[in-house]
Parts: sequence; structure tokens; C-alpha cells
Amino acid sequence: MEFISGINKKDVMEIGELLSEDAVGKTATLNGAVHTIRNMGDVAFVILRKRDGLVQTVFEEGVTDFDLKELREGTAVTVTGVVNREERAPNGIEVRLATVKVLSQPVEPMPVPIGKWKLGASLETKMALRPIVLRNVRERAKFKIQEGMARAFGEFMFAQGFTEVRTPKITSKGAEGGANIFKLDYFHKPAVLNQSPQFYKQMMVGVFDRVFEVAPVFRAEKHSTKRHLNEYVSMDMEMGYIDGFEDVMAMEAGYLQHMVELLKDKYAKECKMLGVTLPKVDKIPSVRFDEAKALVAKKYNREIRNPYDLEPEEEALIGQYFQEEEGADFVFVTHYPSKKRPFYAMDDPADPTFTLSFDLLFRGMEVTTGGQRIHDYHALLQKMEDRGIGREGIEPYLMIFKHGMPPHGGLGIGLERLTMRLLNEENVRETTLFPRDLSRLEP
Amino acid sequence: MEFISGINKKDVMEIGELLSEDAVGKTATLNGAVHTIRNMGDVAFVILRKRDGLVQTVFEEGVTDFDLKELREGTAVTVTGVVNREERAPNGIEVRLATVKVLSQPVEPMPVPIGKWKLGASLETKMALRPIVLRNVRERAKFKIQEGMARAFGEFMFAQGFTEVRTPKITSKGAEGGANIFKLDYFHKPAVLNQSPQFYKQMMVGVFDRVFEVAPVFRAEKHSTKRHLNEYVSMDMEMGYIDGFEDVMAMEAGYLQHMVELLKDKYAKECKMLGVTLPKVDKIPSVRFDEAKALVAKKYNREIRNPYDLEPEEEALIGQYFQEEEGADFVFVTHYPSKKRPFYAMDDPADPTFTLSFDLLFRGMEVTTGGQRIHDYHALLQKMEDRGIGREGIEPYLMIFKHGMPPHGGLGIGLERLTMRLLNEENVRETTLFPRDLSRLEP
Repeated sequence: MEFISGINKKDVMEIGELLSEDAVGKTATLNGAVHTIRNMGDVAFVILRKRDGLVQTVFEEGVTDFDLKELREGTAVTVTGVVNREERAPNGIEVRLATVKVLSQPVEPMPVPIGKWKLGASLETKMALRPIVLRNVRERAKFKIQEGMARAFGEFMFAQGFTEVRTPKITSKGAEGGANIFKLDYFHKPAVLNQSPQFYKQMMVGVFDRVFEVAPVFRAEKHSTKRHLNEYVSMDMEMGYIDGFEDVMAMEAGYLQHMVELLKDKYAKECKMLGVTLPKVDKIPSVRFDEAKALVAKKYNREIRNPYDLEPEEEALIGQYFQEEEGADFVFVTHYPSKKRPFYAMDDPADPTFTLSFDLLFRGMEVTTGGQRIHDYHALLQKMEDRGIGREGIEPYLMIFKHGMPPHGGLGIGLERLTMRLLNEENVRETTLFPRDLSRLEP
Repeated sequence: MEFISGINKKDVMEIGELLSEDAVGKTATLNGAVHTIRNMGDVAFVILRKRDGLVQTVFEEGVTDFDLKELREGTAVTVTGVVNREERAPNGIEVRLATVKVLSQPVEPMPVPIGKWKLGASLETKMALRPIVLRNVRERAKFKIQEGMARAFGEFMFAQGFTEVRTPKITSKGAEGGANIFKLDYFHKPAVLNQSPQFYKQMMVGVFDRVFEVAPVFRAEKHSTKRHLNEYVSMDMEMGYIDGFEDVMAMEAGYLQHMVELLKDKYAKECKMLGVTLPKVDKIPSVRFDEAKALVAKKYNREIRNPYDLEPEEEALIGQYFQEEEGADFVFVTHYPSKKRPFYAMDDPADPTFTLSFDLLFRGMEVTTGGQRIHDYHALLQKMEDRGIGREGIEPYLMIFKHGMPPHGGLGIGLERLTMRLLNEENVRETTLFPRDLSRLEP
């Protein structure tokens, strides 16, 4: 019998360690995948791809105890060699190879030149070859940044006294209702994939006051646009004891501020690699839905066709307006029409045609929907009745109001869209690891 | 137009602030839900439930400017009053009420006495009234601890250079295959809910070397046991450039060590409330599958009925054996029979009847399955052929091996089961927020 006592330090070095003053001039052991090979004759530059970047290794005929022909793009190796400073190499160092050991060999050449700085492949190719294409350092950097955006959300939520919850995705009835819902057979009972953790996070407000969840949501929308996905990651939060939906907006602004700080602090390399301009988040304009419509109608000579809906072009123009007038990347649009919001949204007592709700637009695209929810049992039943919504299947949700709920509100942030806007990508699939859309169910 | 500049400090105080030396003797404002009321005549003790604990407030006839009859269990309030030290009260303080403002009222009495220390309700009742039952402070403490266990996983993974990934749950073909799979119609194409992120995390090893994901997985198993769920949270990781599956076990031991430290540091209150004995994680015994079977057969006079399978009673006895012999809470069981592992498991070159794999047992129950995976393209195809597995639907998975994969391995930890064992609960539903089983699709 043996014992496992936790991780052992290995003599294999990561880039951070190779860059330390101590490492220079000494022999190091490192591993990685062969990213590119530039053969100059007697000398060859073999770039290794590691999780935290690229390392230039130098193969020298007669010095390196190895046959260069054994190396191909995609070969996984462990090498040893002396670390030298080299201004022109990635991270300013290179390793003069003494030994090379092959761990694993590919069997076919790369289908796309993943070693290139810009891949130059079509969206279709990128999607079809996703598992390979993501090995390109700029492609993968997008998802490192996305990691940071979600990580910042968790960090900020914890710091603000929120509890992380994990709610079921298979359920008996969707939170938003409607036709845009995936159905499945659950042991001969009809079930659906949750469109939103809305009901569950409200239930948990009654338990922990403040809760958050970062998890997949599922929408069977038959849209084929550049910004719709049928499965996406929603960063959700819900908070009790609010004075108004402005508290929810303030919390989101706080998150965005923390996100920008975390990206500056821990994801600077990836941001630089992708030329990311971090957004302005110190003060975010907030404008009423009807005012926003009027402002862009006036400034850009547009007719208001439907006073109760915001067209994608209007969203873009609101973004443009506040960019031009206030230098703002983000803008909160508040008081959405009641008929465009779900039954649980709290109507504005001053004018019940509108709700105490908001969207957040980021560079002209909606990335968040949020607002205050009805917390009074009778008010909720009344609104359900007004809309012809039955109680069937949502009794467990109604239970929390029957037994007392504080005033509360919350929001959901689409992670892939938020990343898309930050990176100024044109298509949300570019910032989705493995997109699901009308025609795409794999990889 | 207004601007949102981030969260504003409010004058409402949380328990941490009420406990500070500064607060005592001064008037504070706080909010919460009425948890219990103990009416003594002229005086009443009104316990408020807040997210981080309970606060005793004292209602005094003639002093408090309010009618006590307005308060019921479940009323949400904002109160003001002077903070005093009071040894007998929760957290050693109480608030002598000056004013009470009702934010929201329940309409029916609590269906279960959630204010009681021990709820004393049946599992059926607890499940049926889940959203309310979780308001009991000991019930909710379980999920605070569960939060900590998942949080520790993320923290440890980040510290070890892992990248967090978010992979799709709807896909064309399940990772584990077999019949235990939920099917759905995806825009007239057959689709399934992923049983495991296995294929995706392996794809991402080719990109980031080390990846992790904490997300729901779906298993249509027709088991109705105390330890099976049809949807659960899997803490998954996968790491490249391993020397063997022992590296994966070592990483798990490191996580468990960090988890215990985090629970001690940040979840001590909840651990104390539930009487949790933190497990021993400094060195975890590791024993071969066949040896483990032989050891318990000998010590407990059992016949080995099937040398290639581990019965639940055998698992329990292995746990008991190592508890008795080594004082161990955890034990790694290694080298599972090849026929009990999926096709991608790496067989032991020394004896291909067994695999380079492991389970982790926690107090006699499996909480983790892991191991080294095949990384060579031809070896993988050969094993698929041997098992009669076609390539259809898994071409994107095979693509990564075709273009080179390092030696790698990983594991999946069932979060609810891990919590169940830590809390010594008899049924995994007790440590699942909203369980999904054969008969339960709501709440």
C-alpha cells in the first residue's frame, strides 16, 4: 500500500519559472507541444506551446542529441537545455536544446496553420475544426479572457455576501414560458431544459438573501443571427432587501469595475495579444427606455415605429449616442414596457405600462436583462391572472411568496455576448467555446 | 439622465458590522426576515434571519414604536434599535427595537417549523417543501458548506495553472455511451444531454494543458437509491503532461487539503453548526482494486463473487478497513478492470485486464472516478475496434488525437456525494439543492 500526500513538485518548469533570474544560464527541463518549426539548416527554431505562452527552443545539429525529423507540429515533447536571454524570442528567453524526448506523435499534418499569428480561417472552418483551431494562441486567448470575466463575477459576488447556488437544468416548466423551450422525456414525464434559473434563484433569495449562479441556459429560439445561441452561459444573480432596481444596477456596475481590474491584473497578456481596449466603467449612464428611443430618433432622424419595442438597430444607435455624447461604452436602459417583460417583473407604480427593470447595453448590444421582481403574493397572482397564466407547474415558486419574500431583484448576464463586445467580435460564435445554434450540434 | 457609479454603502448593517466594538451602544439599522417570535408579554424576542446568521431583537411594549401583532414568521422587515451585548443571544448581541418597518408580509403560516434548531421533518416533506425548508438555518448551512467545497476546487485549480472551461451540455453523442442518456429533439435532429464533459475537457487539454469545469451532468439511470441522482454537479478536471495517473490522484489530494483549509478558514460557523468532523487528508492510502477486494474478503470473511466489480457493500467495507487499519477517511482504489471502464481509459501495459485508473472512496462511498486516458490515435482506434465502437458522431473527438495529444488524465468528483459524506448524511438528496430522481422533477 502507498500513500498520496498531495502534489509533488516536479523538475519540469513552467514559463513563469523559466523567466526568473535564477533560471538563466542553467539547464532546465520543460514540456510542451511543438507549435512551429523554422528550419534554418544547421539550426532550427522549435517553438513550444505551453499553457501560459510560447517558448523558443533552439535545435543545433551536433549539439542537440536528437533527430530533428522526428519533430512535427503537434508533437508533444519533454526537452532539456540551457536557458538564455534572447530579446527576439517570445518572453525574451530561449532554450538551447540538449535533449528531446517525444511523448506523443500526431498522425496527420495540421488542417489549418495554427502556428500563425492570425489564423485567417473562415468562421465555418473555425467551427468545424474547433478543437484544433483553439490551439492557435490568439483563439485560445479569447477564452482565457472569458475565464477572467466569469471569475471576476464569482469573486465580486463572494465579496458582496452572495452565496453560490447550483440549480437544476431539467425541470417541469420553463421560467420564461413560451415556445422557445427544449422539451425532453423524463422517465415518461414531460420535462424541459431551463431557459433561466429565475424561479430557483428567487427561491434561494428567501434562503440566503443574495445568490448567484454561473451556468448554462437553453433557449430553443429559431433565430439564426450573429448574436443568438441556443445554449449559453448565464451569469445570474438575485438580491433581497433592495430599495429599488437601481441597487441591482449598482451591483452590476461594481462587478464590471472589478472585472476590468482583474483583467488588468491577471489577464494583461491576453488583453494585449488581442488588442483589447478595456471599457469605461467608472460611471455608466442610465436612461429611460422611452427617452432613449426619443433621443436616437431625434439625433439620427429615425421614426419611432413601435414605442414598446427596441429594434437591434435602435440598440446600436443608443450605444452610438452615448458613445458620442458621453464617451460611454455601457448604458443602462431602464423602465422597459411591461408587455415585453415576464409576469414576475414589477410594474412601475407611477405608470404600470412600464416596469422597474433595465437592460445593459455594451457598445450597442444588450448583454444584461434585470430588474425588480414582484414580492407580494397577491400582486403576483393578480398579474398572472391578468395575463392568463395558470398556477399549474409553478406552485413551488408561488410557495415562497405565500410564506414571505423580501423586496428583491436581479439580473442575468450573457457571458459569451459580454466577451464578444469586449473583444469587438462580429459574431458571438467567435467567443463561444463550442457554439450551439440552429445547424450546429457538434463538435 | 443619471449615472451609476458602482455600489453605494448603505446604512443598513450586516451581522459582521453589528459585532464590531464600534456598533455596541449605538443605534443600528438592519433588515431580515422574522425567523421566530417568543412573546413574553411586555417583552418579545423577535429573531431575525439574515444571510450570515440570526440576530435577536427585543420588542418592548411602550418602547418600540410598533404593533407586535403585525409581525409573523416570514415577515420581511427593516428595524432600528440600540445594539447591546447579550451573552445568551446568537452571536452575543441583541438589538433593542426602536422602530420596525414591514417590507413584505407572508399570507400563510409556515408549513414546517423552520425556526426550530432541528427541523424533524421526513425526507418527503423536506423535498416537497424544499424552497421553504431551506430557510431553516441548519438546512441552509449544508449548502453554504457545499459552496465552499466547490469554491475550494476553483481556487485550487487556478493556483495550479488550470483554465476554467464551459462546455456544451446539449450534444450529438454522449461521452459514456450506453442507455443511461437523456434524449431530446434539437430542431428535428436527435440530441442528448451530456453525461460528462469528458470529450470536451480532453479537447481542451490540447489547448490549455490543464482545464477544469464545475457544471451539471445528466444521467438517465433508472436507479432509485440513496446515492444516485439523475442530474448532479460534477467537478471535472483534466491535465496534460502527466507521468502517470498518480499525478491526477496527487492533484486531487491537493484539492482535498485546500478544501479542508478553506472550510476551517471561511466556513467554520457552518461546520460547527452541523457538527462536521473535517476528514484526514494529509496522506491518503492507495490500494489496488484486486488487493482491496482480497483485504476485505479476508478481514470480514466475505466471498469474492465477482473479481471484476465492486459491490456497494464492498466499497463500504474497504472504507471500514482503512478507517480501522489506518484511521483514513479517504482511500484511493486503483487499477480498475478494463471491462468496467470506458474505451478511452488507458489499459495497464503490465496487465491490460486492468486500467491505469482509480476511484476515490470517502467514508466507504465512491466520490470520484479518474485515470489516465489513451493519447495515441492508433491505440485509441484499436481499442474502439476491439469494443465494436464506431467512429460516427465522435470524429471531432478523434480529431485531437490525429493532430497530437500529450499524455493526460483527469477525474470527475460528484459534488453532492462529496458533501453527503462530509456531512455524514444518509441520503444524497439531503445535500442536493433541488434533487432530480426517478420520481422528482420539481421543485
